[in-house]
Formats: sequence, C-alpha cells, structure tokens
Amino acid sequence: MAICTPLNSSTYSSIIPQQNHHDAAVSFARRACWRATSSHRPRRGFTVITCASSDAGTVVIGLAADSGCGAAEPPKGGNPDSNTLISDTTTVICLDDYHSLDRTGRKEKGVTALDPKANDFDLMYDQVKALKSGVAVEKPIYNHVTGLLDPAEVIKPPKILVIEGLHPMFDERVRKLLDFSIYLDISNEVKFAWKIQRDMAERGHSLESIKASIEARKPDFDAYIDPQKQYADAVIEVLPTTLIPDDNEGKVLRVRLIMKEGVKFFNPVYLFDEGSTISWIPCGRKLTCSYPGIKFTYGPDTYFGQEVSVLEMDGQFDRLDELIYVESHLSNLSTKFYGEVTQQMLKHADFPGSNNGTGLFQTIVGLKIRDLFEQLVASKAKSPVEAKA
Amino acid sequence: MAICTPLNSSTYSSIIPQQNHHDAAVSFARRACWRATSSHRPRRGFTVITCASSDAGTVVIGLAADSGCGAAEPPKGGNPDSNTLISDTTTVICLDDYHSLDRTGRKEKGVTALDPKANDFDLMYDQVKALKSGVAVEKPIYNHVTGLLDPAEVIKPPKILVIEGLHPMFDERVRKLLDFSIYLDISNEVKFAWKIQRDMAERGHSLESIKASIEARKPDFDAYIDPQKQYADAVIEVLPTTLIPDDNEGKVLRVRLIMKEGVKFFNPVYLFDEGSTISWIPCGRKLTCSYPGIKFTYGPDTYFGQEVSVLEMDGQFDRLDELIYVESHLSNLSTKFYGEVTQQMLKHADFPGSNNGTGLFQTIVGLKIRDLFEQLVASKAKSPVEAKA
Repeated sequence: MAICTPLNSSTYSSIIPQQNHHDAAVSFARRACWRATSSHRPRRGFTVITCASSDAGTVVIGLAADSGCGAAEPPKGGNPDSNTLISDTTTVICLDDYHSLDRTGRKEKGVTALDPKANDFDLMYDQVKALKSGVAVEKPIYNHVTGLLDPAEVIKPPKILVIEGLHPMFDERVRKLLDFSIYLDISNEVKFAWKIQRDMAERGHSLESIKASIEARKPDFDAYIDPQKQYADAVIEVLPTTLIPDDNEGKVLRVRLIMKEGVKFFNPVYLFDEGSTISWIPCGRKLTCSYPGIKFTYGPDTYFGQEVSVLEMDGQFDRLDELIYVESHLSNLSTKFYGEVTQQMLKHADFPGSNNGTGLFQTIVGLKIRDLFEQLVASKAKSPVEAKA
Repeated sequence: MAICTPLNSSTYSSIIPQQNHHDAAVSFARRACWRATSSHRPRRGFTVITCASSDAGTVVIGLAADSGCGAAEPPKGGNPDSNTLISDTTTVICLDDYHSLDRTGRKEKGVTALDPKANDFDLMYDQVKALKSGVAVEKPIYNHVTGLLDPAEVIKPPKILVIEGLHPMFDERVRKLLDFSIYLDISNEVKFAWKIQRDMAERGHSLESIKASIEARKPDFDAYIDPQKQYADAVIEVLPTTLIPDDNEGKVLRVRLIMKEGVKFFNPVYLFDEGSTISWIPCGRKLTCSYPGIKFTYGPDTYFGQEVSVLEMDGQFDRLDELIYVESHLSNLSTKFYGEVTQQMLKHADFPGSNNGTGLFQTIVGLKIRDLFEQLVASKAKSPVEAKA
C-alpha cells in the first residue's frame, strides 16, 4: 500500500531534488534531452510527482529521446562526473553510461553513439534487471566532458528507476523490464528551427553546417532511435503549429500526446467525451486568447497498428486562467486535487515549454507515472506472492 | 405562476392535438411548411410541449417558412376550410388567412402570395395585438382549395399563439408583438433536391419545369421572405451534408440551429463548453455509427451583425442509442427529465427528419418555447402591473 504524505506544494517535488542540492528538476530537465528554444533557459524535463510507499518495489520507466543525456551541470556534493540523478524516491540513469566504446573508440570504428555497436546492452539489461529485483549494481560512468569511461559508481535500487537516453526500448530484454515507456518525438522541422536558433544565432554556426550536422545524424537516428517509438506507452510529438500559416519559427508548437490503449494502470487522458473525436478552441466567450489562439484535438487513432488515444494542443497559453480553464475540461488527469496540473506547471514556469503542449503533456505524463507507480505498488501489496513470482 | 401537470408521456402533446381529433402534430407539421423528402410521409413541424398555466397571458410565437401553410387535411369536426389548429393551450394561425388578394386578384394584379401587396398587414397587426391582449377576433380564412377568401371564424385568445407562414416578421408592428421568432431556412440545394424527388419522381414533372418554378418564385422570396431571418431569435438552416463528398441527393442533411444571444428567457443550447468552438464526432469507441456518421459543431458566431451561438448536426441517427448519446452531451436543452428530447423524437418517429438535425432541432426549439412560455408566465405573475403596462 502506498502511504502518501499530505499533498501540499512542499511535498510535491520533482523526482530529482533533495540529494543533489541544486534545482534538480532543471537538472533532470537538462538531462531529459529536451531542447529549449534558447540555450539561456533551462531545458524542460519530466517532473514525476511521487509519494512515499511502504513497499519498495522498483518501478522502471523508460524515457527515449534523441539528443543524449549528458548532465550540463554536475551534481554538487556527489561524484562530479556522474550522470545519475537521485532523489528520495527516484533514480534517473543516463543510458550513455552503457556506451561500450568511448569517444576515441567510436572514432576508430567509425560509429556514432546512436549505433547499438557502441553500447553494451547485455550490461544494461543485467543492471536494470538487478535494480528492478532490489539488488544494487556498479554502473559505469560515461564522461561527457572527456569522452572516456570513468570508474563505476554504486546504484542502489530506488522506488522508481528512470532509464533515460537514446536506447531504453531498443533491446527487447530491457524493454520487457519497463513498467512504462515514453518516447519524445521532436519533428525534423522543429529540431531544425531550434538548432538554427541556438547554433546559428547564439553560437555563430552557419546554416550549412547545421544542416550537415542534422543530416549526418539522420541515418543512425532513423535506424536505431526512431523505431523505438512503436514500443512506447506514451509518445509526445512536437510539431510546427498549424495555427500560423507556413510557420517555420518553431516558437508556437503543435504537440501531440499519443497514449496507448490497454496499458495496465494507465488510463489515457481525454477531452469531454472519451473515445469520440473532438476539436476544441477554448478561446471564445468565456476565455479570450491572443493570436494565434489555442486549439485542442482529441480522438481515437492507431499508431503502428495499435489502438491509441491522441490529445493534441496547438498554440500556447498566455495567462494562468487559460491553463486552469484547459485543465478543468480535461479528464483522467490523475490529479489528486483540482488544479494540480496548473500548480505543477506554475511551479516550473521558468522551464521552456511551460506555456505550451510540451510542458502540459510532460506534466500530465508525470502525474500518470505517479498514478501508475501507486497502483503498481498497491497491486503488489495485495498479491505479494504473485508480484514476486 | 405556471401550474404544470405531471410530466408523463400522456401530458406531453403537441400544441395542436385534442380539439381536432386527428394527429395534430402531423397536421401542424403539414402546416409548418416543412418539406418532407417524400410526399407520402407527413411533413414534420414544431411540437411545442406546454404545461397549463393559471395566468393566461398570451405568448406570441412567429414561425416563418417559405412554402405557405395550407392545411393538407382539414381538421375534423370544426370548420373544414379553416387553416387554424387549436389545442388546449395553443392556437396556430396560418398567415395565408391575411391574404388581401385571392388567387384571381393576385393573377389580375400580377403579384404572388409572397408579395406584401397581396397581404393585409394592418389586419394582421390588429388581430395579433388583440389576441395578445386577451381579446377574441374574427379572422378571415383563405381557402387553399378554391383560392378564395371564406367567411371569417372567431379566434379566442390562447395561452400560446403561433403565427405561421410567409410573413410573420415582415411587418415591424407585428414583429414587435412576437415573444419569440423562428425562421426555417432551407437552402436552395436542398429545396431543389427535395422538389426533384417529389415533383419529378412522384408527379412526373420535368426537370426544366421544376427549375422554372423555383426560379419564378425566387425574386419575391429574396425580396420579401428571406430578409425576415435577420429578425429571428432562432434560425434552422437546412443544408446539404458535407460528410459525403459532392452529395446532391438531399437525403443526408447538415442542419444548423442559429440561436440569438441575449434574448430574454432563451438560453442557447451548447455542446460541452459554452462559448467555445467545438467539433464532435460522437461515433467512436463508445458509439458506432454507419456511413457517413454524425458530426456536431458548436460555437459562437455573428449573424446579420448580431451575436449568436450555432449548433450544427451533419449526418443522421441510425439507432435510438445514438440519439440518447447525443442528447446526454448537449446542455441547456430545457428538458424536464433526462431523455426528454429522445422521448419526444421517438414519439414522432414517423415524421420526416426524425433521424436528423431537422427533427432534433425542431424538438429542441419546442422545448425552448415551453421554457420561454413558463418563464414569461412566471415573470408576469411576479410583477402583474409591469406585465400589463
């Protein structure tokens, strides 16, 4: 049985915070490979809102995203080269730590970090399996600064283990260990717009070199990273807006939350009428919005031949009341009180994406993971024999 | 104060029934100028669901539609040539009775019945005003069979007076007497498709003659009938479906209920979220529909410069559960119990339009008129001096 501490704002924390003594959510965010529109702003990541449990079965979450997970800022107090983020309930492992080839090795063999040949899936499987069954492991550390493999660190089994990086769903054995999996699918147009803004405007790179670097990465990305999304329980797609004709700025986004149906302990969010097809422009008589407004779409669909529900948000929030209004019309949010989504988003209002579907859907996925965790723990407590079998 | 009789199916009746000893709703329907897709089936009309009131202030409703209101079947027992339909609460006057020129007179002067010159608006105003203030009148009768003006009949002031026909909102003085007004706006495409089906398939008319008869009517219609819709509190637009590409059969319909905002005692129906813009395809996981399905749209709009809410239904109901499902998701229906819209529509399931937006929206307008009537009566009872002023 889960024992939840009282739900006020101070007990709501990201999965990262306490032990690292810095803004863990930001740190996790940076780790979560979530590209901001500006490098001056912290990247946004998932905030898994947890509550303590008396039964410490480890729940394993896979989080796949394109651009690696090197910690931009090493955690203070601990191993300065560690990529691991640890809070009281959750440990986030960066899968770069399972690189079998260091930077020099990859160069010599002519493979990228995206190539499975540069990664040790046997070790990844062994260690995730050990942690899931309550056994501590000595996990290698990939040093993003030197490009070398540093001495290993001890990882103790947490309540929630997040494995995050390029290949959480690539290896079938690892995939089967996941209780829930998420894939961040940033469209090429948006990736390109963001990269131009950062690398060209802020780092002085040429348009050609940016294009070349994206193109160079593409074959391995398409071969090894992208196919994982078919296995994800939830996919967050980030696309250009359709509210502004021919927009290519990548500032206003259309974000889709694709939720697999039939996943145990995961009930997809819906808008107004579960299972029907809806479009909703909340801006109207009760809510006014500035250009280009906000448009939600919801409905059943198929994704890689599997039944899914898709919630889409195009546009962005200008004001708090818009966010509350939207939250109040969504169902199955797994909140514990009215306005919890809004509260969570306000808490991290400085994160990029806080005003659009990236922030909204990451917050929702965070709540869904808490819900899943609590249900899993509760079900294990009910049938301990079955759970241990 | 309104004293409502218990609301079971036997107390729900159309505004026409008891005194005419035949299916009054059908009769009214035929009168309501509502073109069926087949002449073998009775035409559908408004079913105003009323409940008795102790305060007999006459509420006047205007109902404008294109094609006149000659009673296809004279009421039994009463004046066989009367166009008036009378129930315990409601009297429906056919405005053809205010023709100032009979058929011969119109021919001589070269005017159609649509032309205001063929109608006596002074008399119409005087008599509606008299009835509204509780005074009986001697109303002329236009005989649709002979085309002559028959001897007048006495009309006593009812609780609800419906004035129905070509010009209920044409004369400003008459218009000001209306407590609520409705305009039936059947698009040219649908009129044409229906006329072809009836006159060509069933009466052997040629396509050319049908086109010619529609064209001949058009100038007067555009000049005198159509402009009245700007004054209507509710407009029901009947359009071809957009669910079937290039459909011109006129069997599947897209029907729009345009509801003026700010009308006292009339709260527009809405879908899910009042004042926002919504599209809804209810057919999905919970409700299955056959091709081409059903699509609802709702949102704020302007109509002749006035703020309105528009509810649209495209497609048709196949089964009872679809109708219940749709009813359960609409708000502000002015029903008195769950499922009343469905019950009303089932009661008149043999009417044309029972399976689409024409039937649904006419039923809803009927309920809104009952609501308006009860609120008007209640407000008069509260402030009798003001009401009589």
